[in-house]
Amino acid sequence: MANDDFKGCWPVAPTPFKPNGEIDKEGMKRVIDCMVDQQVDGICILANYSEQFLLSDEEREILTRLCIEHVDGRVPVITTVSHFSTDIAFLRAKLVKELGGEMLMMMPPYHGALMKGSPQQTFEQFAKVGEVGVTIMVQDAPLSGIDLPVPLLIKMAKEIEMVKCFKIECAQAAAKLRVLVNEGGDFIEGPFDGEEGITLFADLEAGATGNMSSAMIPDLIRPIVLDYLGGNSQKSENQYNHILPLINYENRQCGFRATKVVMKEGGVINSDFCRHPIPDLEENTKKGLINLVKNYNPIALQWGK
Amino acid sequence: MANDDFKGCWPVAPTPFKPNGEIDKEGMKRVIDCMVDQQVDGICILANYSEQFLLSDEEREILTRLCIEHVDGRVPVITTVSHFSTDIAFLRAKLVKELGGEMLMMMPPYHGALMKGSPQQTFEQFAKVGEVGVTIMVQDAPLSGIDLPVPLLIKMAKEIEMVKCFKIECAQAAAKLRVLVNEGGDFIEGPFDGEEGITLFADLEAGATGNMSSAMIPDLIRPIVLDYLGGNSQKSENQYNHILPLINYENRQCGFRATKVVMKEGGVINSDFCRHPIPDLEENTKKGLINLVKNYNPIALQWGK
Repeated sequence: MANDDFKGCWPVAPTPFKPNGEIDKEGMKRVIDCMVDQQVDGICILANYSEQFLLSDEEREILTRLCIEHVDGRVPVITTVSHFSTDIAFLRAKLVKELGGEMLMMMPPYHGALMKGSPQQTFEQFAKVGEVGVTIMVQDAPLSGIDLPVPLLIKMAKEIEMVKCFKIECAQAAAKLRVLVNEGGDFIEGPFDGEEGITLFADLEAGATGNMSSAMIPDLIRPIVLDYLGGNSQKSENQYNHILPLINYENRQCGFRATKVVMKEGGVINSDFCRHPIPDLEENTKKGLINLVKNYNPIALQWGK
Repeated sequence: MANDDFKGCWPVAPTPFKPNGEIDKEGMKRVIDCMVDQQVDGICILANYSEQFLLSDEEREILTRLCIEHVDGRVPVITTVSHFSTDIAFLRAKLVKELGGEMLMMMPPYHGALMKGSPQQTFEQFAKVGEVGVTIMVQDAPLSGIDLPVPLLIKMAKEIEMVKCFKIECAQAAAKLRVLVNEGGDFIEGPFDGEEGITLFADLEAGATGNMSSAMIPDLIRPIVLDYLGGNSQKSENQYNHILPLINYENRQCGFRATKVVMKEGGVINSDFCRHPIPDLEENTKKGLINLVKNYNPIALQWGK
């Protein structure tokens, strides 16, 4: 993939479950088809918004196969392969390679509140997984509990051929992205915004070329990115301010449960079931989300009707 | 199991790897046989000291089967089944039940630095896993990042039949154990000390009846517990003070790598290989550990010679 490819809107696919807790495979395919119709530039699977922390290894493998096969090259697929063990992350990456997946996403090695890869261990893990030969997006997310200093990210970009993209979703993401892009130059081929797009406009101003939001409203987010990259920053900002109340509600009141609520409302999937210990989204919050999203009428709200 | 059973020394078995990173199944059996010869009162598998965070789901299942089958009832086996997903912890517990395993150990639901089960979610997860019908030891360890208040632990002990044992290895463990035992009374059937025994004597004074150390020197730790429980606290304290330099070195300089270094030196296993990103124990630290442990000549240092 060339530099020019890492642009636009590459949302995370949620993982639908049946009301009995099983993975809803048909629902998963419909989520993907809906996302293709949203004209996304890529689809990320098994991310935190996909509830990867509630899946077994076997379910991850099933979903990796199902999603890459069902997307069938219509858009690039980014598969999350994070694990504390480098060997396990490596094996997950090898499966993606075998299946023809286009990209990997990885957090640094972490487990629980205390096991945190050092800069050296993090570099080594990415270098090892890089040997598989699939483009890697580094995910700089608070869930890992690991601070990734910009000099480490630049070293990874320069010295590990496959490390090309960086999704920055730590606190004060824009400031970090700006330094990363300024100091990393051409080695930072894909600087990405994340976290539902709650910092999208500041991240675009800081140099982000891509966005990884949820799949709730990528049809509304993508023009913001493309207009900004096309030099029309005022139009971009106006659209961003227009959808910000919805993104804010998603990010602060719902988290990863929002997209499935909207996709269920829009007939994309049959259930917005949450696996324990995650409770269902509280009824009033759910209603608030649906009422708010109706003002915007995104594709996910109409797709299955 | 009756109340009287939750006494003595129930160490964690380390998970041996071959130099190529694979699980050393024959080595695992030898670890278990060595531990039986150490006259342990029980064996805990897949704990943090067993490097559970570096194992795949499939490897966990292989080790669960292998260990329970190889122990073959010689001592009770405690199998760790922690997972953020309640369904996955439940399925792991069901496997233990099918195999005839005697006990389960679980941390509260956690993932990474930020996903932390609330008291309600934690209670519900233990209640669900309790339905399997195997005795549960609650592991109160800093790795989860979750504070477990004493009233929650007592509620779990009173309302979830299978929750009987509590391994307290948070900061100031003894103070917590004392309140737990005093306020929980007979519902706290097995109050346990943990973390390599670094707080063992204070924990015994606080009411611990059992200890879950590593498998490095349980032959030296068990008499400390039994003497204390038998009313001979001075003898217990003298022995504790005698081995404390070694426990301190293990706990603060080596962590979960110590037992495999000693067991390799003692011919129990062939390799003390660490899976990436965990580095090998630094050579001088390794030598320091071996020199120190030679002063005590525990079974693990002689077993395979």
